[in-house]
Amino acid sequence: MRAERISEVTTNRLSLYLRCLNELALKGDVSVSSEELARICFLNSAQIRKDLACFGEFGVRGVGYEVEALRANLKRILGLNRVHSIAIAGAGRLGSALADYYAGGGRGFQVKAVFDIDETKIGRKVGGVEIFDVKNFSSIVKKGNIEVAVIAVPAEAAQETLEMIEAAGIRAILNFAPVPLSAGENVKLNTVDLSTSLENLSFYLKGNGNGSRVHPR
Amino acid sequence: MRAERISEVTTNRLSLYLRCLNELALKGDVSVSSEELARICFLNSAQIRKDLACFGEFGVRGVGYEVEALRANLKRILGLNRVHSIAIAGAGRLGSALADYYAGGGRGFQVKAVFDIDETKIGRKVGGVEIFDVKNFSSIVKKGNIEVAVIAVPAEAAQETLEMIEAAGIRAILNFAPVPLSAGENVKLNTVDLSTSLENLSFYLKGNGNGSRVHPR
Repeated sequence: MRAERISEVTTNRLSLYLRCLNELALKGDVSVSSEELARICFLNSAQIRKDLACFGEFGVRGVGYEVEALRANLKRILGLNRVHSIAIAGAGRLGSALADYYAGGGRGFQVKAVFDIDETKIGRKVGGVEIFDVKNFSSIVKKGNIEVAVIAVPAEAAQETLEMIEAAGIRAILNFAPVPLSAGENVKLNTVDLSTSLENLSFYLKGNGNGSRVHPR
Repeated sequence: MRAERISEVTTNRLSLYLRCLNELALKGDVSVSSEELARICFLNSAQIRKDLACFGEFGVRGVGYEVEALRANLKRILGLNRVHSIAIAGAGRLGSALADYYAGGGRGFQVKAVFDIDETKIGRKVGGVEIFDVKNFSSIVKKGNIEVAVIAVPAEAAQETLEMIEAAGIRAILNFAPVPLSAGENVKLNTVDLSTSLENLSFYLKGNGNGSRVHPR
């Protein structure tokens, strides 16, 4: 499978496989069958075999996949064989929660800097990461080789924050602001929209649609 | 459009229209054309006209849609004409951030209770909401008519937390734990998977795929 042909849905499944393999590695498992991996991931084994065969991972009959080799391969494919540095715009509760969670770098991403306009926050630390004046965003991003930015500012400031991030040369952005944003063509903008997720639950509670037995992907 | 035929993608667009209409109402706008609504939502106007025509909202030529009437209609369709009560399992940074954000009830959802196993947290408040012992989850949920639960616990506790939530009779769940979960058939489980979103950005940075000009939905 050539990388550029991999869809986002497939990428998301590769992330899921990697997470489940990490669990197996922690338990000390050396190999796993596609059936067992399927059971852990709540997917069917044919889907897993198909995805993995696409990039040359063929399980050995009676043995399955080698856990460490498959982990390394998935990390390489997803670009996770190195740690990506993150900047977070917005040192509110959400920005702080993310800084704390991703401060260590153990999850493949490391928060290097948090930014805010609030002078009472600037210079303080959150999860061990310093909060900087947003005025210095571009210079700190460039100095720290930061490649990923998170938008955790109020909705009304989200578009201008996005434009500041783009102007600093960052091309991969995770947005938490519940508003539509317009990004440049060479920018990948993923939005995590909590309000829409909740409203979708509200719609379900009205008696519409089916529940899902399986972790939805 | 019969409600049960509305797909999740459409529901998500209805959420977006509602959010943009709320902005227009704040500005004091009385009516909006489909072209103007499309511009604000970064969608095309034909899509909007199609979605809205499905449930009987026809704009008036030369006037467009009445903002207040359309807002009320969208709220009714999404079940947002009343406030839903939320319980949050996990009083860590993420659970606390959510409790703070949704404490007021002004966003259509109101956090009524936060739960944790940590005795040093129990009895304290976050965003004005009390943190309860998770042992009392079921009784507090029933007493408070809580319909929506959020899973904000560590990955290894997520499945048992889900089962506890289901046992308390809650059918609409928002999960933040980055692990596959198995939910019952009559439960709607929406997962917000931050790690997968970040890994997808990592994949993009490797030079794969296209960026998006428009807020992706």
